[in-house]
Amino acid sequence: MPSFQLASREYKKEDTVIHLGTAAVGGGNTLIIAGPCAVENREMMLELAPVLKDMGVHVLRGGAFKPRTSPYSFQGLGEEGLRILNEAGRCTGLPVVTELMDVRDGELVYRYADIIQIGSRNMQNYTLLREVGQMDKPVMLKRGLSATIEEWLLAAEYILAEGNQQVILCERGIRTFETYTRNTLDVAAVGAVKNLSHLPVIVDPSHATGRRELVAPAAKAAAAAGADGLMIEVHPNPGKALSDGQQSITPRELAVLLKMVRAIDHALDRSRVHY
Amino acid sequence: MPSFQLASREYKKEDTVIHLGTAAVGGGNTLIIAGPCAVENREMMLELAPVLKDMGVHVLRGGAFKPRTSPYSFQGLGEEGLRILNEAGRCTGLPVVTELMDVRDGELVYRYADIIQIGSRNMQNYTLLREVGQMDKPVMLKRGLSATIEEWLLAAEYILAEGNQQVILCERGIRTFETYTRNTLDVAAVGAVKNLSHLPVIVDPSHATGRRELVAPAAKAAAAAGADGLMIEVHPNPGKALSDGQQSITPRELAVLLKMVRAIDHALDRSRVHY
Amino acid sequence: MPSFQLASREYKKEDTVIHLGTAAVGGGNTLIIAGPCAVENREMMLELAPVLKDMGVHVLRGGAFKPRTSPYSFQGLGEEGLRILNEAGRCTGLPVVTELMDVRDGELVYRYADIIQIGSRNMQNYTLLREVGQMDKPVMLKRGLSATIEEWLLAAEYILAEGNQQVILCERGIRTFETYTRNTLDVAAVGAVKNLSHLPVIVDPSHATGRRELVAPAAKAAAAAGADGLMIEVHPNPGKALSDGQQSITPRELAVLLKMVRAIDHALDRSRVHY
Amino acid sequence: MPSFQLASREYKKEDTVIHLGTAAVGGGNTLIIAGPCAVENREMMLELAPVLKDMGVHVLRGGAFKPRTSPYSFQGLGEEGLRILNEAGRCTGLPVVTELMDVRDGELVYRYADIIQIGSRNMQNYTLLREVGQMDKPVMLKRGLSATIEEWLLAAEYILAEGNQQVILCERGIRTFETYTRNTLDVAAVGAVKNLSHLPVIVDPSHATGRRELVAPAAKAAAAAGADGLMIEVHPNPGKALSDGQQSITPRELAVLLKMVRAIDHALDRSRVHY
Repeated sequence: MPSFQLASREYKKEDTVIHLGTAAVGGGNTLIIAGPCAVENREMMLELAPVLKDMGVHVLRGGAFKPRTSPYSFQGLGEEGLRILNEAGRCTGLPVVTELMDVRDGELVYRYADIIQIGSRNMQNYTLLREVGQMDKPVMLKRGLSATIEEWLLAAEYILAEGNQQVILCERGIRTFETYTRNTLDVAAVGAVKNLSHLPVIVDPSHATGRRELVAPAAKAAAAAGADGLMIEVHPNPGKALSDGQQSITPRELAVLLKMVRAIDHALDRSRVHY
Repeated sequence: MPSFQLASREYKKEDTVIHLGTAAVGGGNTLIIAGPCAVENREMMLELAPVLKDMGVHVLRGGAFKPRTSPYSFQGLGEEGLRILNEAGRCTGLPVVTELMDVRDGELVYRYADIIQIGSRNMQNYTLLREVGQMDKPVMLKRGLSATIEEWLLAAEYILAEGNQQVILCERGIRTFETYTRNTLDVAAVGAVKNLSHLPVIVDPSHATGRRELVAPAAKAAAAAGADGLMIEVHPNPGKALSDGQQSITPRELAVLLKMVRAIDHALDRSRVHY
Repeated sequence: MPSFQLASREYKKEDTVIHLGTAAVGGGNTLIIAGPCAVENREMMLELAPVLKDMGVHVLRGGAFKPRTSPYSFQGLGEEGLRILNEAGRCTGLPVVTELMDVRDGELVYRYADIIQIGSRNMQNYTLLREVGQMDKPVMLKRGLSATIEEWLLAAEYILAEGNQQVILCERGIRTFETYTRNTLDVAAVGAVKNLSHLPVIVDPSHATGRRELVAPAAKAAAAAGADGLMIEVHPNPGKALSDGQQSITPRELAVLLKMVRAIDHALDRSRVHY
Repeated sequence: MPSFQLASREYKKEDTVIHLGTAAVGGGNTLIIAGPCAVENREMMLELAPVLKDMGVHVLRGGAFKPRTSPYSFQGLGEEGLRILNEAGRCTGLPVVTELMDVRDGELVYRYADIIQIGSRNMQNYTLLREVGQMDKPVMLKRGLSATIEEWLLAAEYILAEGNQQVILCERGIRTFETYTRNTLDVAAVGAVKNLSHLPVIVDPSHATGRRELVAPAAKAAAAAGADGLMIEVHPNPGKALSDGQQSITPRELAVLLKMVRAIDHALDRSRVHY
């Protein structure tokens, strides 16, 4: 099998740094992305965004199109969700990231989002990869549920080969026999990717563990392992979230966690320009 | 999580039977689908099709759009491949099945194919599932690499919920720690699906094992376990195949295998109307 | 890593045939081993044994020392269980198989059993492998829960290297992400082992599926894939079994299953000397 | 299934602290265990031990009985290895840990070792668990290759139920589909165990990753996730190690790593009494 080339460390020795508003990812700092799993309503989003900004979050997340295992689960607000997320971003000056699921929605999502997310279920949706490969906005590519590190980097290669060099990898747990956690966070994949590739790699401890009480230890582990960032699900009232409430933490819990992440970064002497 | 409903055995007690040309799947017989992994050229396809028909194959397969792990691998002939496959089908009177990867190619593939295949990588591409759910042709839904049986049936539910009741499930091996075989054939999933659902379920021993010498034992196992059909990769010259040669068998090997499958069917007293 | 040698097909081209009373395994026939998960009491065992013999079962199984995940679960009757199993064997003329867990019980189990079973949890208990490698009775080596085929054959190599050439391999399902079944039956491993090794390989559909209703399809699949035998948990009253009741079938269900297994054997033209 | 009781946090609210010489594990500090995979010769061990002690290592490791996948691989020096390890411990004042594989070697290993290790392959060797459950020395119980967290705690329960309350759990990676690393470090299991149990839990980043260059990021991740200790394979000349050289780091690399681990501990404000 021909393997990844443009994504490889041999092809490009220096780390790829991607600028996102006033923040950046890949340059030694730990990028913090936070927000609810799904955009649920305008009020919540506009209230939450400045709170997150004040605690040093760099990028706002929120799903408008939600890939759900069942056709009967809440599927997201669609374009209305995109508009709300975009407004919350503009109000705070924070860039926003949201998932693109349907290649026909490419232009729509491009218009409202600053970073385009490709979800785990679509990591090998080559049609979608090619589409975002032709965009001039950063793409966050989540690792597939059972994708090897090589397959993940080959998926990134699909995007790079189309011309878009702004790819952020996101480890979000892999599927194993263990059922206590929703997935198994493959924290060593962070170090592996840093060796194999020049692309920035962040970690999503919320999906990786699927349990609120494990988000903080997993996030700290990711930071210590050298992740370029964290994406964390935050909800003002996790018990009432329309999706993924069991893995969402509150803004207050996020504030405590961020302090510890910064302390780890400081201890490991990573530059912390954006805090 | 709300689980599958329309796909469930509770919802519909009797087996769903889907008619494909003069053959059918789900009615007690073992449907045989065969052909090359990818349509490589017109000559090969037109030579191979009548050979397969003569040995009792019911449906012709051949990929025109190939999902490949690397962007640098052969990606299929595209529309040209669809045209060739369709011609081979018309010449022999056999229905043809081919994969739809891009929702924007829906009409195109619909025009040329008798059965629309959704590949493993796209099992949770809900956009695509909804699209084929609105078609009036049978859909073959391959199980995702690491999809549970429940997730697989929920993916079928996406199609059923749009109105298309002609869904054929295809077990093609799951990803495990074992590396000797390409995937691990989950043969017990056949019995599980028959209990949980009314939908027909077939097995692809070629992708499940990834090794030519294991295709026959895996196919026999599937037939004995009660699979409603088999989909087998056949190539006149596997060593020269543009994709998946290591798991393709020759027409001559298929003929021997089909004899054994029929003997198993006969032994287990399944109706064998279409042989 | 140095790999298996004595266990390999290169080392010994012809199939190893192991004689067990008037039956044999590895010579083309399908050996049937049946009995309860655990020996529960003398009465049940002495009643069940002749029933099994009458339907053509070749070997009687029953656990006296039970490896249980929890220290608080029923652990087996110990030596009393061995005595009962042995008596049931003598009464019917059937050889008996039971598990050895503790190397210090080697002599004891040797005295009462005709075939020594090494369980999945002990597949890499090298101390135990070496011990049974020095015995002159057949050993049934179950595949570890997450052992690759190569590791399994290397475990057999430990036994062969000590001088005991009578090793029967037993596939019993591997651990995967799928939770609907207790384990995932790796039916293709049967064909793989037949290619790689001269040792006989049987299948345990009871542990592989963990579900009563899937034992029959899994057993038929194993027979069709070329397994040299089947080991099936049978209990006169599965609902009241002290262990593994949910995967045990009744003697009546076994009788129906064995007819189908013989029909498959006949269809595939395997010799059926011992039926 | 009856689940763990004595091992549970409900049964005992406060953390179990186990004293090992002048060090302790479970009391908030990070215990460092280091040494070669196998004791190879007296000279190397006596040279290495004081070097490790000087950099703050608390416990010396070294295998005398080595569980090897192949019977033809180096199996350890046996009692000679135990003697050398014991001598290295006495010379430096460091407690030593080594693996017990054969229940018949219980007394022997007890005589020479301060901590008895139960290896991954023997996590469900209940005979061995019961044996060490009756000893009055601490036991380090490594997680099985494919053991769930619940099964791991139930294995600990076997030891606790015999009376020995000094059990140290060790996460060492689980088997998944990913082959780039030897195993997949389940770093979230650390937090899970801390919630479910009062027992101390350490991490072995050497076996978890199987790659020298990933030992440091994995060790830092474990420390940040709240592990009570680390066990790291160190060899003066990894390229010439008789086993596991590809995952061993040099004393110099360990020194650098320990500085970072201490910095993380300091940042997270864990007590660091024993540095």
